[in-house]
Amino acid sequence: MIERYARPEMVEIWSARTKYRIWYEIEAHACDAQAELGVIPKEAAEAVWKAKDAEFDVARIDEIESVTKHDVIAFLTHLAEFIGDGQARFVHQGMTSSDVLDTTLNVQLTRAADLLIADVERLMEALKTRAYEHKDTVRIGRSHGIHAEPTTMGLTFARFYAEWDRNLARLKAARAEVATGAISGAVGTFANIDPAVEEHVCAAMGLAPEPISTQVIPRDRHAMFFATLGVLASSIENIATEIRHMQRTEVLEAEEFFSKGQKGSSAMPHKRNPVLTENLTGLARLVRSAVTPALENVALWHERDISHSSVERGIGPDATVHLDFALSRLAGVVEKLVVYPETMEKNLHKFRGLVMSQRVLLALTQAGVSREDAYTLVQRNAMKVWEQGADFRTELLADPEVTAALSPQQIEEKFDLGYHTKQVDRIFARVFGA
Amino acid sequence: MIERYARPEMVEIWSARTKYRIWYEIEAHACDAQAELGVIPKEAAEAVWKAKDAEFDVARIDEIESVTKHDVIAFLTHLAEFIGDGQARFVHQGMTSSDVLDTTLNVQLTRAADLLIADVERLMEALKTRAYEHKDTVRIGRSHGIHAEPTTMGLTFARFYAEWDRNLARLKAARAEVATGAISGAVGTFANIDPAVEEHVCAAMGLAPEPISTQVIPRDRHAMFFATLGVLASSIENIATEIRHMQRTEVLEAEEFFSKGQKGSSAMPHKRNPVLTENLTGLARLVRSAVTPALENVALWHERDISHSSVERGIGPDATVHLDFALSRLAGVVEKLVVYPETMEKNLHKFRGLVMSQRVLLALTQAGVSREDAYTLVQRNAMKVWEQGADFRTELLADPEVTAALSPQQIEEKFDLGYHTKQVDRIFARVFGA
Amino acid sequence: MIERYARPEMVEIWSARTKYRIWYEIEAHACDAQAELGVIPKEAAEAVWKAKDAEFDVARIDEIESVTKHDVIAFLTHLAEFIGDGQARFVHQGMTSSDVLDTTLNVQLTRAADLLIADVERLMEALKTRAYEHKDTVRIGRSHGIHAEPTTMGLTFARFYAEWDRNLARLKAARAEVATGAISGAVGTFANIDPAVEEHVCAAMGLAPEPISTQVIPRDRHAMFFATLGVLASSIENIATEIRHMQRTEVLEAEEFFSKGQKGSSAMPHKRNPVLTENLTGLARLVRSAVTPALENVALWHERDISHSSVERGIGPDATVHLDFALSRLAGVVEKLVVYPETMEKNLHKFRGLVMSQRVLLALTQAGVSREDAYTLVQRNAMKVWEQGADFRTELLADPEVTAALSPQQIEEKFDLGYHTKQVDRIFARVFGA
Amino acid sequence: MIERYARPEMVEIWSARTKYRIWYEIEAHACDAQAELGVIPKEAAEAVWKAKDAEFDVARIDEIESVTKHDVIAFLTHLAEFIGDGQARFVHQGMTSSDVLDTTLNVQLTRAADLLIADVERLMEALKTRAYEHKDTVRIGRSHGIHAEPTTMGLTFARFYAEWDRNLARLKAARAEVATGAISGAVGTFANIDPAVEEHVCAAMGLAPEPISTQVIPRDRHAMFFATLGVLASSIENIATEIRHMQRTEVLEAEEFFSKGQKGSSAMPHKRNPVLTENLTGLARLVRSAVTPALENVALWHERDISHSSVERGIGPDATVHLDFALSRLAGVVEKLVVYPETMEKNLHKFRGLVMSQRVLLALTQAGVSREDAYTLVQRNAMKVWEQGADFRTELLADPEVTAALSPQQIEEKFDLGYHTKQVDRIFARVFGA
Repeated sequence: MIERYARPEMVEIWSARTKYRIWYEIEAHACDAQAELGVIPKEAAEAVWKAKDAEFDVARIDEIESVTKHDVIAFLTHLAEFIGDGQARFVHQGMTSSDVLDTTLNVQLTRAADLLIADVERLMEALKTRAYEHKDTVRIGRSHGIHAEPTTMGLTFARFYAEWDRNLARLKAARAEVATGAISGAVGTFANIDPAVEEHVCAAMGLAPEPISTQVIPRDRHAMFFATLGVLASSIENIATEIRHMQRTEVLEAEEFFSKGQKGSSAMPHKRNPVLTENLTGLARLVRSAVTPALENVALWHERDISHSSVERGIGPDATVHLDFALSRLAGVVEKLVVYPETMEKNLHKFRGLVMSQRVLLALTQAGVSREDAYTLVQRNAMKVWEQGADFRTELLADPEVTAALSPQQIEEKFDLGYHTKQVDRIFARVFGA
Repeated sequence: MIERYARPEMVEIWSARTKYRIWYEIEAHACDAQAELGVIPKEAAEAVWKAKDAEFDVARIDEIESVTKHDVIAFLTHLAEFIGDGQARFVHQGMTSSDVLDTTLNVQLTRAADLLIADVERLMEALKTRAYEHKDTVRIGRSHGIHAEPTTMGLTFARFYAEWDRNLARLKAARAEVATGAISGAVGTFANIDPAVEEHVCAAMGLAPEPISTQVIPRDRHAMFFATLGVLASSIENIATEIRHMQRTEVLEAEEFFSKGQKGSSAMPHKRNPVLTENLTGLARLVRSAVTPALENVALWHERDISHSSVERGIGPDATVHLDFALSRLAGVVEKLVVYPETMEKNLHKFRGLVMSQRVLLALTQAGVSREDAYTLVQRNAMKVWEQGADFRTELLADPEVTAALSPQQIEEKFDLGYHTKQVDRIFARVFGA
Repeated sequence: MIERYARPEMVEIWSARTKYRIWYEIEAHACDAQAELGVIPKEAAEAVWKAKDAEFDVARIDEIESVTKHDVIAFLTHLAEFIGDGQARFVHQGMTSSDVLDTTLNVQLTRAADLLIADVERLMEALKTRAYEHKDTVRIGRSHGIHAEPTTMGLTFARFYAEWDRNLARLKAARAEVATGAISGAVGTFANIDPAVEEHVCAAMGLAPEPISTQVIPRDRHAMFFATLGVLASSIENIATEIRHMQRTEVLEAEEFFSKGQKGSSAMPHKRNPVLTENLTGLARLVRSAVTPALENVALWHERDISHSSVERGIGPDATVHLDFALSRLAGVVEKLVVYPETMEKNLHKFRGLVMSQRVLLALTQAGVSREDAYTLVQRNAMKVWEQGADFRTELLADPEVTAALSPQQIEEKFDLGYHTKQVDRIFARVFGA
Repeated sequence: MIERYARPEMVEIWSARTKYRIWYEIEAHACDAQAELGVIPKEAAEAVWKAKDAEFDVARIDEIESVTKHDVIAFLTHLAEFIGDGQARFVHQGMTSSDVLDTTLNVQLTRAADLLIADVERLMEALKTRAYEHKDTVRIGRSHGIHAEPTTMGLTFARFYAEWDRNLARLKAARAEVATGAISGAVGTFANIDPAVEEHVCAAMGLAPEPISTQVIPRDRHAMFFATLGVLASSIENIATEIRHMQRTEVLEAEEFFSKGQKGSSAMPHKRNPVLTENLTGLARLVRSAVTPALENVALWHERDISHSSVERGIGPDATVHLDFALSRLAGVVEKLVVYPETMEKNLHKFRGLVMSQRVLLALTQAGVSREDAYTLVQRNAMKVWEQGADFRTELLADPEVTAALSPQQIEEKFDLGYHTKQVDRIFARVFGA
């Protein structure tokens, strides 16, 4: 995990402190259930809750682990220091380490998903606001990086909104994928523990019981989770790429917000770099890199091998922390993006009306001119624009063969931007609701 | 696409024939809608349906394309040969090539998804059947490839079933992701075509209208689709790995079906190789390799660049065709898998009762023996098994210090396999329903 | 493999015809060596060469394979039809199928590498030619997509040349990686065949003997091979991205060659899309997708499992065929790229001298102006350029506080482009040799 | 970076402390060259070396950076505190931040490569030692996880040695890839700095000058570097997989070293898990995950965009640190691996001679028995072994039709293990040298 790209709330989910807190809660709830079943004394279960507000000592647990070579035993030993050996021996009864570890991982992942969901909602809010703000701000649409037909900046924001609306649904589905827990024993047979314990613990931790586990919760769930994060990362790259293009010197239709104080901004006013969105492009690659190892983690040997563990120690925190940071950074970029409608207009007219050449061509044929002749008419006027910088509309109006087919009004109409924006409200209604 | 790993029905979805058929249907339905809107004559729309049962000539279209350098125009030219130039000129009006191409791709992907769904259902059926058949077939559960505690073969099949039940839901979600169409024009503004055309065509083709498109349908949808196929592929590898392990010479708890006629089977009866599941392991890698390029396809420049296209020409057919083949092959392997319960029993007893040592240890401590003493008692008997091949139960029964703490009956009870299988029905109910 | 992105020579390497031809040569050379060793009769070895000019019948072999279920046996059966059963029984003696298959794969990969090497050499030639042609064509250098300092188009071509010079060396190393053969038997012990056979066959086929094989040639070799192709693919994307940027409407410093005949070129002169380089961007993703499965192929079980085989049937042809096509396409794009030096000059001056602001700042401080004051001086003149479109040099010359520190000549000197190009020859010497 | 899988020496390479030390050295050497060229005073260059043994204060630099928002300026400000503002203003003259940052990254990568090279050499030493130790320890070779023909444990170690010998060469080549530095200015034109500075600094830092750079050193170099690490990671997985298989309960031909003190080892002697090699399998996945983002980093926009930076902050330390840890762990596993030759022998004879059935079949045909008859003879005796647990050799000797074709001695000879090991010395000579 790269600290520079990390926010405290998500980092805390992956801290040793949080981990031990979750371990504790799982063990305590399990004791409740075991006491209810009569497997352990009620007093033991009650005693465990004495540590409810305890601050576990991570260094102390590490110390014990360095002797026992077993993390869960180290924790339980430390726990006994709070609740007394007498009752402590009832803790963890019938359970396997993996019961605690795997359920904990999923608690962490669902909490991480909750933060990510909030991130996405903030981003969507920003996109929606900017979409309505620029609903009618006309800019040139581009295919292949080449001017095509006019569109609006609002549509650009709106399509990103729609993409993130899909991502929100995907993220919620991904959260549900990993929102399961398992307390099922060494190979998942519940030989040593009643399924009722699993049910109780899961309910208490906000999870569903895993219908069938082995020693571990099946890793296709986590694969799906990380694959989904990979899709979100790619959508981040998608917006980032658009903004980077808009900010390039020759386009300059928008800029990342640049605070007055930032050095160099006014001595080199042309040199404001889209470093945030470039950074997001890189972070997208990093988050995506979790997908393949997560997929490779699915095929474990028999009832479990532990190869998945080192992978998850990496990608668990890394992918969620960096995605959280990236989403937050992206929301900020969108919220504060400086949009330049005047440049948009200027760019649109870069080749003085040429982007309308296809409409004119169509109008001529519809007016009865043969396809070949229409083509020649458009071509000879277009080339004057392209080569001599003439204005397309002016040239057309001055071409008698063109005006023989189309009235000046009809020609003017072809250059009406309203033609291109007339369905914007309808599209907005589809995206944002009526 | 590797022909050897392809089945005709899925291949046909990606054939030129099918592609042109879908193009035709899109154009024809669009004409209906345009006629309804009064944009083109009703006769033109009707005329298009004259080609309803036509067999388009792929070679002829290729020939035209080699001149026009444009696939859609080539097709339309060929179509005119069926319906006449007079009416043909109304076809495709107001549309962009991408309207046809992208909608077609999604028709193909949803059809592919339908086949895959059927494949998964067949596989699930096979897993369920084998699960019930071997519900009580005891085998040793293994963690880290090492004997742990008993489980049953039925539970193995059942957990794969549960995994594929999840995959079925994922696949259906993935299908919904790509079940959209777009007829929205050069940059998605509907400047040249009414949204009603899109609605009509999509309804006719079994798709939902894409709420907001640019020149193309957004590629986060396809990324999610292929990412999901990657998860399924990993689940294939998961079962394949289990079977490969079961078939290894030293384990031999199951074998891929081996027809009597297959050469070498009886002159070298030990040499039956799990080649199908090894092959599936490789195919899983191939299908997974579609995930990263699909993610890289999301960030297109502005309203579209065509970089995604060559990628999709590869991964579209390859991932679906090979996954279809793999699922079918896997279903066959599961259906016909030869299971050897006797070897399972033999393997379980390889170290004559040693897998019960933890239960005995626990019983001794619960009977009041100190943890340290219990450990010593178990250890000295266990080592006789490990080093001299003794029988664990026999040794325990003959150890007076053990029998001082546990009655013979209590000792015997520790070796009762029923202890490990008692929850199997409950787990099955969770997996397959009551 | 996508036919549209395939060239015949590379495709032929992967044809069934070529494969059987290589099989034949391996078997024939092996017979020579076996005869030399006295293992088989000299007449048998000689008889095998009777099929030297034979055209093997692929359909016939397929037919036999459908019965024998074994490809090598099917081929040998067909071979016997040419050389007679009497001698044919000596063919393949002591060998395993993998001896033939793995050695063949490496012959194919080395031949593929040879074609790729030629492709890279052609590309390098084109880059070098264009580099010298535009050695002194000044254009603005850009960091973060923003104008930075001047550079030359020649340097752009030269850096791509240097990158491909590295790729050429990598490709040759990758070729050497897979230029080994193995005739070592079922588990690589040479139990049934003398190492001399391997040596003879490898020498004849242009390979080195694999120092130690199992049943297969170790797959780390192939992993390295495909990883290298992935690097080359990324370098293709690198040039493609540069060209796509140069061709965007607002930049227009270069265009992919557009033949006069291409439709639409003159009626919509602004709409020439960089479809070749966009296509190359996608092909780069496809070729790269071979890397991960190739890495996953390395860890085979014990002396071999066959999981690698299905992967290689895919990535072997696909990665080499598409890379060959992409390299050829890219070479064509570079060779014919239409470069617009005038637009380069125009773009360079877009913000009338502002790109020199840093040089001026430095000059002022070197002339004794305090850093803070220098900053203020530059800033107030820069803002006039940025906001009012003034000319930076003119403003500086008119600012008495600036001219108090710098003479007009010194100011002029800061706008001298020769300052930026003075080391071009030296860099060219480093790249292309003196 | 996961601390648990990190060794201090490699971690130190990536520390802020080391980074600033390298920055300092680059700046100081650059001053020397600039003074030599007369660009800055000799005293200034000398003054910089006053900080030679300084301990830079990372927290202090961070503090300054939080104000200046620029890491290199923050460092230079801190440096001035050691050498005085008067001389400090000559530091970094004509240089760009990237000159320092990129050259530093490559210094770090080459140092990391040096550690990795040492790791590989230690691993190779271990493999060689164990290879000679078990040169003649016969074990069954397995294809498809199924017994094939005998081989030796020494050959297993030897083939891993050969694989790592290749990896060593690859790693050295990868090191050379990134062993370049650049001091070439904002867009690589040397406009503000003489190439002689670059040459001097690179020589001092153990690097070659990058022949042509832009603002950055081209990232195809780093892509190749990380791709190579990915291959090494896969080779780690290869050995790890072999050992995991050897340690599984049913095979038990070897075990990871298990110290006497480790809990549970003797009370559950069967339950020694290959957790180190499972862990290595996961680490291999993690290291490999750096490859794709490194490939995606190659295509930067124009003279640079900064998207690569966040990626490298992740994969730079992570891939090298985890690979270093993994190599060291693997070397330890190999050095101390507990090998069980008796179990190897036992496994070899699991199906009492059946693995020799192919040799017998061959011998019968060579003795003139028709292929069909030979097959029948082998088959009927093989089935007795397979189904009734008979001994293959005994059965053959007792079969008059067999003994009619082969003398008892000839039959015995087929079971001679020496047949399979006769070329081991020759193979060893190929791998380790004569």
